[in-house]
Amino acid sequence: MRTTQALAVIDALQSSDWNREIFQSLVNSNVIAVHVTLAFWQDCRQTLSAIGNWNRHFNENADLILPVRSVDDIDLAANTGRTGIILGFQNSSSIEDELALVEIFHSLGIRIMQLTYNNQSLLGTGCYESADSGLTRFGKNVIREMNRLGMIIDVSHTSERTCLEAIEFSDRPIAVTHANPLTFENVVRNKSDKLLRSLADSGGMLGFSLYPLHLKNGSDCTLQDFCEMVAQTAQMIGVEHLGFGSDLCLGWSDEQVSYMRNGTWNIENASDDSAVWPAYPSWFQCNEDFPNIASGLQKAGFSDAEIEMIYSGNWYRFFERAMAAQ
Amino acid sequence: MRTTQALAVIDALQSSDWNREIFQSLVNSNVIAVHVTLAFWQDCRQTLSAIGNWNRHFNENADLILPVRSVDDIDLAANTGRTGIILGFQNSSSIEDELALVEIFHSLGIRIMQLTYNNQSLLGTGCYESADSGLTRFGKNVIREMNRLGMIIDVSHTSERTCLEAIEFSDRPIAVTHANPLTFENVVRNKSDKLLRSLADSGGMLGFSLYPLHLKNGSDCTLQDFCEMVAQTAQMIGVEHLGFGSDLCLGWSDEQVSYMRNGTWNIENASDDSAVWPAYPSWFQCNEDFPNIASGLQKAGFSDAEIEMIYSGNWYRFFERAMAAQ
Repeated sequence: MRTTQALAVIDALQSSDWNREIFQSLVNSNVIAVHVTLAFWQDCRQTLSAIGNWNRHFNENADLILPVRSVDDIDLAANTGRTGIILGFQNSSSIEDELALVEIFHSLGIRIMQLTYNNQSLLGTGCYESADSGLTRFGKNVIREMNRLGMIIDVSHTSERTCLEAIEFSDRPIAVTHANPLTFENVVRNKSDKLLRSLADSGGMLGFSLYPLHLKNGSDCTLQDFCEMVAQTAQMIGVEHLGFGSDLCLGWSDEQVSYMRNGTWNIENASDDSAVWPAYPSWFQCNEDFPNIASGLQKAGFSDAEIEMIYSGNWYRFFERAMAAQ
Repeated sequence: MRTTQALAVIDALQSSDWNREIFQSLVNSNVIAVHVTLAFWQDCRQTLSAIGNWNRHFNENADLILPVRSVDDIDLAANTGRTGIILGFQNSSSIEDELALVEIFHSLGIRIMQLTYNNQSLLGTGCYESADSGLTRFGKNVIREMNRLGMIIDVSHTSERTCLEAIEFSDRPIAVTHANPLTFENVVRNKSDKLLRSLADSGGMLGFSLYPLHLKNGSDCTLQDFCEMVAQTAQMIGVEHLGFGSDLCLGWSDEQVSYMRNGTWNIENASDDSAVWPAYPSWFQCNEDFPNIASGLQKAGFSDAEIEMIYSGNWYRFFERAMAAQ
């Protein structure tokens, strides 16, 4: 089923309501690895159920997917026509206030964790808070532990100061798995040039988001505008720090948007009518649309080798360094 | 430090308040593997903290101990002068009501789980209940899952009918890690001849307990009486089904006895004055006393080869079969 000429893709974030049909679409689209979300607001116990659910997915769909514990598993996926699944958290709620849970979740296969999801967490400040107090005492301990184990620090939904402090404090390069430059679309989820430069200087990675709220003109964003933004970012921090983090979310009802925004901390807005899924741009509706972006990048001046780097090579080399045991 | 002439020991249960001094005593006594208890009444979340605690033990005492995930790790321990630690639960409280937690705890290194601890559990009936309703619906699912993964079913604190049904229902041999024959001392924790025959017929193992409440004359039990009991049991079910499960508990205050008996289900008795640690027999006070038993077994008529089987060989071969992935 896989189109043999399609470029291999590593996508640094998708948060779908997973099922076999979506796994098949990943395989068909030559997505050799994808980072998936197990927790937004879930506590430790709820997260274990989510891991149990993924163990069942792996068991029932072993012909399509496999868990990624190191880049060797991405190679295995690529060589056997499957998709490697990188398990991750978009928040630190899963580890509660216990440092030892970082190693326990690493043992269970978690390889990426965000320090915060929009709000203040026990580790640092989220991007929607009005005051940003930076990394907490616990946050520093957790970063040390993630560095030791080879769990990747993700600051996609984290505030500026906390991001900068995490880049500075971490011994290993960190990632913004899914966001865009603030200059492209001025929303709190996108990142300043200062932050992107600091990220790249430390060897980190930016995954470009295709989520409409992070795009210029939202759902109407053109492929040309998107690809020119990629080109400008490459000029600013170097193409070797760039990849995709599409933030593709498939199969959910609107209730999930409300949960993602409000969790259990904002009951008043739990039935907010504005919490609906925005439409993805016409040229990126699903995994099968990844090849569209390559043609746009070509028009924006990228070479074939650079396009391969953005599609998979940069994330692969980053994961190779970031997941290795120290 | 290790006495080179000491027989290697595999002990199928110890529940101490672990510290470096006790790890050193295991190594000094040539205990190449020991099954340790992480949970009596603890729920899933509390059990993760206990695993975190063991991860710290492994990290800080890597010169003395290592985790056992298969018998290869027992070989590694023996060949490097260390003790292999087999993590286990004395109850099924850790998996709560969720089948997927069996695989999750297996991934975290748990290799032995009791179906019940004294009381009715969600899986079956404990040995102190007055009515024994056998394996539950969930209990059967959990046994299937443990069989699939290679997690050992332990029925030491389980009632007669539930034990017999577990032996019958399980595709793999099961274990009574720590108990004695009922004919030796008539207490609910010891096992009937019928049960011991059924256990052995299915390829299972009995670990002889040195806990005074399971011994004839309690703390005053003689080495001769103990070793004659071993000889009689060998005659009845075959020496190849016998090993040690000393139930050695070191370093605790009496509060732990009360917790082990009453958990949080029996608050009235939580400060029961009778909940005190009994004294172990004079000839088995600590790991360093294991060699005393060999001389007693010799006098009771066992050959050197048989003594080696009881000390380590039988458990080793059982673990080899029972822990292997299917």
